[in-house]
Amino acid sequence: MEKPALADHPINEAMKQRWSPRAFDPRPMPRADILTILEAARWAASSFNQQPWHFLVATRDQEERFAQLLDCLVPGNQVWARNASLLILTVTKRTFDHNDSPNSCCVHDVGLTACQLVLQATELGYATHQMAGIEADKIREVYGVPEGFDPVTGIAVGYPGDPNSLPEDLREMELGARTRRPFNEYIFADRWGQPAGY
Amino acid sequence: MEKPALADHPINEAMKQRWSPRAFDPRPMPRADILTILEAARWAASSFNQQPWHFLVATRDQEERFAQLLDCLVPGNQVWARNASLLILTVTKRTFDHNDSPNSCCVHDVGLTACQLVLQATELGYATHQMAGIEADKIREVYGVPEGFDPVTGIAVGYPGDPNSLPEDLREMELGARTRRPFNEYIFADRWGQPAGY
Repeated sequence: MEKPALADHPINEAMKQRWSPRAFDPRPMPRADILTILEAARWAASSFNQQPWHFLVATRDQEERFAQLLDCLVPGNQVWARNASLLILTVTKRTFDHNDSPNSCCVHDVGLTACQLVLQATELGYATHQMAGIEADKIREVYGVPEGFDPVTGIAVGYPGDPNSLPEDLREMELGARTRRPFNEYIFADRWGQPAGY
Repeated sequence: MEKPALADHPINEAMKQRWSPRAFDPRPMPRADILTILEAARWAASSFNQQPWHFLVATRDQEERFAQLLDCLVPGNQVWARNASLLILTVTKRTFDHNDSPNSCCVHDVGLTACQLVLQATELGYATHQMAGIEADKIREVYGVPEGFDPVTGIAVGYPGDPNSLPEDLREMELGARTRRPFNEYIFADRWGQPAGY
């Protein structure tokens, strides 16, 4: 199912097509596509080029790995993410390597790399769904995440599926419109709350 | 100056071309391009579609606005960001609108929107440079940012400039190679530190 952004101005095609479905068709992905998706994420910007992001990954053909990772999502996400082809947990390093001081952008920069990951996947025709709903403590324990690192999100990548395969409540969310706030609610100039005029 | 990513696998062209120069050619940008860049950012994903991001913006043809915003960057960034065409400060809302609970992804999701903004700008031929170096307290005061909102980053967008226009120390950084860690240092499976094999 396609759900292109109702953009008021012309934008990049992958950004237009990207949305976050829950219906996935459970098939394995070609390794070359996984490599391209991970490579796109690799070249994201980061503060002091720290690249604070770390990924825990599993593909659906790796049954044990996949089950282990799936179990680190909140139950509500497991329901549909089990049909993804590639599951990723993002983890960030809190401090800079070069001076051990706190990296104020360590979570922000995970967003930068995740964005490149999902846009590259979209460009290759895959569906993606990022999740705040992960079990951080379980991830720390199951994977042995060291002190100084924090789990941030989950990312499901896979083949677009049939919305009718979803349970009733999820199907309704799947069919809802994509909406965004207008510019004048959040793009300001001079003072907070004063629309910049875009 | 171009500095394409030395990617090991084929990736999206804007991701390949994007880097963070400090040399900008100080010219005004067409309004249509600013609208497209802001629209791309608008359609980023966010947890519960909260869109926690807010932007404070100024273009170089708006002298007072531009000076006010530039003054909210750390001095080291003002040196070169003064030649940008569009300056943006990102600010995030800490809580969800729908239930007032903390939004654990509020900073991460600024990364998602910032990534779309810089990739769209790159696609249009502009140079971009994201900055952790902002004066958060000054931003709060000058713009009257309300309680519950946090400044996150600055973003400079403009025309690529001549590296020779930069002071010596910045010119050296400008000419340095783009580098990234190899996959096996941060893409793990089963346990932390065990390369996933990509």
